Amino acid sequence: MAGSTYGTIFKITTWGESHGAGLGVVIDGCPAGIPLSAMDVQQFLDRRKPGQTRIATPRKEADEVEILSGIFEGYTTGTPISMLVRNTSQQSGDYSEIASYYRPGHADFTFDSKYGFRDYRGGGRSSGRETVGRVAAGAVACIALKQLGIELITYTKSIGNITINMDAFDTSAILETPTCMPDREASEKAENYLEQCIKNSDSAGGIIECIVKNMPAGIGDPVFEKLDANLAKAVMSIGAVKAVEVGDGCAVSFSNGSFNNDAFCIEEQKISKKTNHAGGILGGISDGSDIILRAYVKPTPSIYSTQETVNKEKEEIKINIKGRHDPIIVPRAVVVVEAMTAITLFDALLLNMTARMDSIQKFYI
Amino acid sequence: MAGSTYGTIFKITTWGESHGAGLGVVIDGCPAGIPLSAMDVQQFLDRRKPGQTRIATPRKEADEVEILSGIFEGYTTGTPISMLVRNTSQQSGDYSEIASYYRPGHADFTFDSKYGFRDYRGGGRSSGRETVGRVAAGAVACIALKQLGIELITYTKSIGNITINMDAFDTSAILETPTCMPDREASEKAENYLEQCIKNSDSAGGIIECIVKNMPAGIGDPVFEKLDANLAKAVMSIGAVKAVEVGDGCAVSFSNGSFNNDAFCIEEQKISKKTNHAGGILGGISDGSDIILRAYVKPTPSIYSTQETVNKEKEEIKINIKGRHDPIIVPRAVVVVEAMTAITLFDALLLNMTARMDSIQKFYI
Amino acid sequence: MAGSTYGTIFKITTWGESHGAGLGVVIDGCPAGIPLSAMDVQQFLDRRKPGQTRIATPRKEADEVEILSGIFEGYTTGTPISMLVRNTSQQSGDYSEIASYYRPGHADFTFDSKYGFRDYRGGGRSSGRETVGRVAAGAVACIALKQLGIELITYTKSIGNITINMDAFDTSAILETPTCMPDREASEKAENYLEQCIKNSDSAGGIIECIVKNMPAGIGDPVFEKLDANLAKAVMSIGAVKAVEVGDGCAVSFSNGSFNNDAFCIEEQKISKKTNHAGGILGGISDGSDIILRAYVKPTPSIYSTQETVNKEKEEIKINIKGRHDPIIVPRAVVVVEAMTAITLFDALLLNMTARMDSIQKFYI
Amino acid sequence: MAGSTYGTIFKITTWGESHGAGLGVVIDGCPAGIPLSAMDVQQFLDRRKPGQTRIATPRKEADEVEILSGIFEGYTTGTPISMLVRNTSQQSGDYSEIASYYRPGHADFTFDSKYGFRDYRGGGRSSGRETVGRVAAGAVACIALKQLGIELITYTKSIGNITINMDAFDTSAILETPTCMPDREASEKAENYLEQCIKNSDSAGGIIECIVKNMPAGIGDPVFEKLDANLAKAVMSIGAVKAVEVGDGCAVSFSNGSFNNDAFCIEEQKISKKTNHAGGILGGISDGSDIILRAYVKPTPSIYSTQETVNKEKEEIKINIKGRHDPIIVPRAVVVVEAMTAITLFDALLLNMTARMDSIQKFYI
Repeated sequence: MAGSTYGTIFKITTWGESHGAGLGVVIDGCPAGIPLSAMDVQQFLDRRKPGQTRIATPRKEADEVEILSGIFEGYTTGTPISMLVRNTSQQSGDYSEIASYYRPGHADFTFDSKYGFRDYRGGGRSSGRETVGRVAAGAVACIALKQLGIELITYTKSIGNITINMDAFDTSAILETPTCMPDREASEKAENYLEQCIKNSDSAGGIIECIVKNMPAGIGDPVFEKLDANLAKAVMSIGAVKAVEVGDGCAVSFSNGSFNNDAFCIEEQKISKKTNHAGGILGGISDGSDIILRAYVKPTPSIYSTQETVNKEKEEIKINIKGRHDPIIVPRAVVVVEAMTAITLFDALLLNMTARMDSIQKFYI
Repeated sequence: MAGSTYGTIFKITTWGESHGAGLGVVIDGCPAGIPLSAMDVQQFLDRRKPGQTRIATPRKEADEVEILSGIFEGYTTGTPISMLVRNTSQQSGDYSEIASYYRPGHADFTFDSKYGFRDYRGGGRSSGRETVGRVAAGAVACIALKQLGIELITYTKSIGNITINMDAFDTSAILETPTCMPDREASEKAENYLEQCIKNSDSAGGIIECIVKNMPAGIGDPVFEKLDANLAKAVMSIGAVKAVEVGDGCAVSFSNGSFNNDAFCIEEQKISKKTNHAGGILGGISDGSDIILRAYVKPTPSIYSTQETVNKEKEEIKINIKGRHDPIIVPRAVVVVEAMTAITLFDALLLNMTARMDSIQKFYI
Repeated sequence: MAGSTYGTIFKITTWGESHGAGLGVVIDGCPAGIPLSAMDVQQFLDRRKPGQTRIATPRKEADEVEILSGIFEGYTTGTPISMLVRNTSQQSGDYSEIASYYRPGHADFTFDSKYGFRDYRGGGRSSGRETVGRVAAGAVACIALKQLGIELITYTKSIGNITINMDAFDTSAILETPTCMPDREASEKAENYLEQCIKNSDSAGGIIECIVKNMPAGIGDPVFEKLDANLAKAVMSIGAVKAVEVGDGCAVSFSNGSFNNDAFCIEEQKISKKTNHAGGILGGISDGSDIILRAYVKPTPSIYSTQETVNKEKEEIKINIKGRHDPIIVPRAVVVVEAMTAITLFDALLLNMTARMDSIQKFYI
Repeated sequence: MAGSTYGTIFKITTWGESHGAGLGVVIDGCPAGIPLSAMDVQQFLDRRKPGQTRIATPRKEADEVEILSGIFEGYTTGTPISMLVRNTSQQSGDYSEIASYYRPGHADFTFDSKYGFRDYRGGGRSSGRETVGRVAAGAVACIALKQLGIELITYTKSIGNITINMDAFDTSAILETPTCMPDREASEKAENYLEQCIKNSDSAGGIIECIVKNMPAGIGDPVFEKLDANLAKAVMSIGAVKAVEVGDGCAVSFSNGSFNNDAFCIEEQKISKKTNHAGGILGGISDGSDIILRAYVKPTPSIYSTQETVNKEKEEIKINIKGRHDPIIVPRAVVVVEAMTAITLFDALLLNMTARMDSIQKFYI
């Protein structure tokens, strides 16, 4: 099991290497009757493209999606949706050197340890381009969630030690700043910091936050398939993410029960909570408050500085990795976090439909 | 799917409520030929029992395990191993009140939202007792890992803001201190802090750390089934865990590539790393260094203080939860983190055996 | 994966050996709110007990079921239902001889080939007693199906070359004849034939038929998870079944399209079919007609005649298997076929609830 | 779950409709290091093409496969293998009529029942073209099996009531006769019979047999994942198959234990069997003899005769289906049976590697 399949009912299978013929995804188990076009998916894919900004390299990735199956007269049919993005701008000539050694912070060594050899061109399957399939599938999940009134807001919360000011939160800025920060002032500072990183031949990390609005209560399962457990897996499975937290997250370890417990209350005749330290999930099941999660992303491992490593002949060497490296992964990973969250939530919503016998009777009789 | 099954090859299914007849687990897919007795499993279960200390309530849980199947003449047979722990000390009389309202920080409300009603006695399926089955299965995984030379060291890293001193690390203290801290001095301080919490009718959180020694390189999968993704799910699925990190974890967001990248080097003619910011996993696959992960555990939600909440009639009320509440979950959850980690790693090791055709040929021809 | 788990949403895990402490099943994913008691399950288990008749040996199996979890105040709670049947009448003393050789027609040799050794007492995991867990789970599925108006009629269709007369079909006879035939005259003949088999130290095979009434149209999936494909697996997974057919089954190979195609028609303003050669399934999806399937069961492999075989030392030997052998498996397997069919159908009904986006919207909004 | 994914380790996901952009498959979990080219796969796909013979219509399907990922320098890399076959010869103009009614023997009605609407062009997802993905994946499984010394021989055993003579078995004839019969004389008769069917505007059914040579003993699992249970599912999941049998199959119901039990013996110092009524599988696990299975295939449901049916407005109507209909499905389904069998067996072989702890220790230490 190479592990390229994810989900139980809404099940996605991604494939493709950085420098192969292309990348794609097959979604199996998507309900019939969702309006869907290639353009809908393209909008999500465009969000993971490198921008033409001072903090990104001038690489051009067209990433045009073709939907090969599962749509008829503008609607999903319930059969597998296969989506294909051809690789266009890759040139394989540059990678002869990388073939011989192991780049620090990359999966080169671990791939060789596992499989005996690897497609070394541009990172192969462990390239960031692997997320193309995730984002295409996430687009479908987001569209389905929207039909249920559920929306995701995902953005860069911090880069290095520059953090957004929640009081200055401006949703429109997410798609407009090169950092995907919802705070234009913080974004400006972060861009300056990243320029400094580029000058230093170095790279930076950051934090991505995702907030889910209007999630109904009662979704998720109580033991291994806890909603937060599945979100943690979904988000940690994105390359470069090294920590995941829900609600107050790490801070709970310093907290006390009297503070951390969210008091229940009645709001508009519905059961609600006065605070949301739990991040919308209690006992693995959604409680109707916003779901809040954060992914901690490591600095781009490809940097221009000289690095120490070893080659396949087990010799210690020094290397300078050529090519185009972004100084940060975070902004392009924002839509990937959103995609993985959406896929996980939609799958949980589908699974939840069989929780009660009275609903099943109502459905069938 | 109630989600009580976990694992792909080494697949466990737990069952049981706090106040039902008992709790247990069925392990399906355990390889034949592992020496195993009820006593081996009992040793792990004893680690999750409440101690007779000043920081735990004097509850008595016998938790004696019976192995019902899958063992013959002292060895696993390859068929399902069913293990049963009867509930003994539970008294159901106390729970009539809890039935009517939703305890803050607990799963009462979310269970009712999902299933329409719940076994409210002692938390039912969402009680901490649910982990009995996990620990019993984890014992088997730990024994199997030990036969492969792999060992797990799991302990309390911090309670509130008292953190162990890694220079004072004393493995023997883990099983001897009531906090499960490997640092007797820090443990003493933490116990004092917890006594203060008890006096305040309050509770505390903390951090559990797990270190895996001698994990071979090449284990895990590159995309959704990344080893760290599965560990994140495994650990986040433990009630009260709100964040999970691997290696430097959250700290990577403040780091730079030049610092965060671990340089490869040669040690004893093997490829190794000079540092281990990655926590033993690169691109989702183990790199042969120690695997390091941390779980952030929230304060016990059951506290003696008066709390605000609502009842099933949607009235805002004030409650005082009676019964025996530990001021902290962390020490009893240490063995649960170890269990979930061991199950995840053993499963990944089994899955990995089919990664290369030459190994398969060697196996069969 | 030892393969003791079955189902996607309604997921069962069976365990237990013929001569271990007991046998059982855990059902995970059973919807909340189904009325269920141990007595309901016991009624199904009693159907697989050996009768006190001239065609069965006077073995006594109590097979009393205990429900250990997942039920509260008479209803399923949505959490795992663990059921336990203790082994009582087994005496292990008889099996020393069987340990050394491979019984023809049994799994002794294949178990040793796979696992290196086996629990040889009474067939261990490959004993017919393994079906206890299936039947207990099947009872729950049958009860759930009944709540949806769906009923299963399962019976012995033939024994040797004695076949029931469909014109003499008498449902009450199924539970009253020792053969489980719905035709008392045919049953009488079959009993005579089986007595003859006993006299010859031989055994006989037969056919089990299952008819499902009131299955709604639209259940099942179009490719690998075809409803008939899953039924074929479910039924073929019962020990001793060597062929499975749906509708006209094998006979279609001799048929012509003009005969085999079932014409659609309108009955009581609903779309129906004039004939049912298809056995209620078209393209892997139920069509609303009765589902009809048959299992072909081999003769009991344990016979009193002298047989040729080999022992573990690879010597050719002659053996006489002692103990109590029924001359036929079929009557006791009838309820097992019903159980596996019910589990498969209920799971398919649950999975089907997510087929259309409009149903999902209606469920959530 | 639309059910287009099959397998546990060697996991395939097919997609595509008869008249969409194309069809394909993603294989996840294929071991690294298998030599593979598009040409290898093309050879299998060519076997499912309609021939240019008197018993097939002169339809032209190019079905050229492109491998999009998972291969590097001529070998599988362990990452997903995505294969694409573009649809070329389809003309959608012909299908306006079919949209309005339900063809007898087809999945039109059941698709509408499940999903609310369907891609009606050429049968959409339930077209025989769906098997393109299965055959492409089966090619890879067959190549892998061959590297383990395992070979499959699959052929038409009978058409209508014309059955091959096993004494005249000629393997070369399988690929040369238009019927895929390994007996040229029987094939000649069958062709005459099929010509007669064409004249009668009718169609015929038949039987496909698959024999697996050199399967090692010990493969498969004892309960739900019995090797024969999985083969039954695999083969029954092929459209038009209505019955599956292993070894003596249906005939066991008329047999006696003394005849049906295969005596073990020693051959060339290995444990073998004197007969093979079991068809190579005992207790769900391979016994080292040839695996023998048969699929019973119904007559092509599309026939030229006038048929009775209903339309979407629930009116009873008479129809004549236009287009190109083969009078028989069997010859083109032979390679599909082989593909599904190979995929199932290879997956079982991979799963089996974790059956014993001593093998696992040997692998890792």
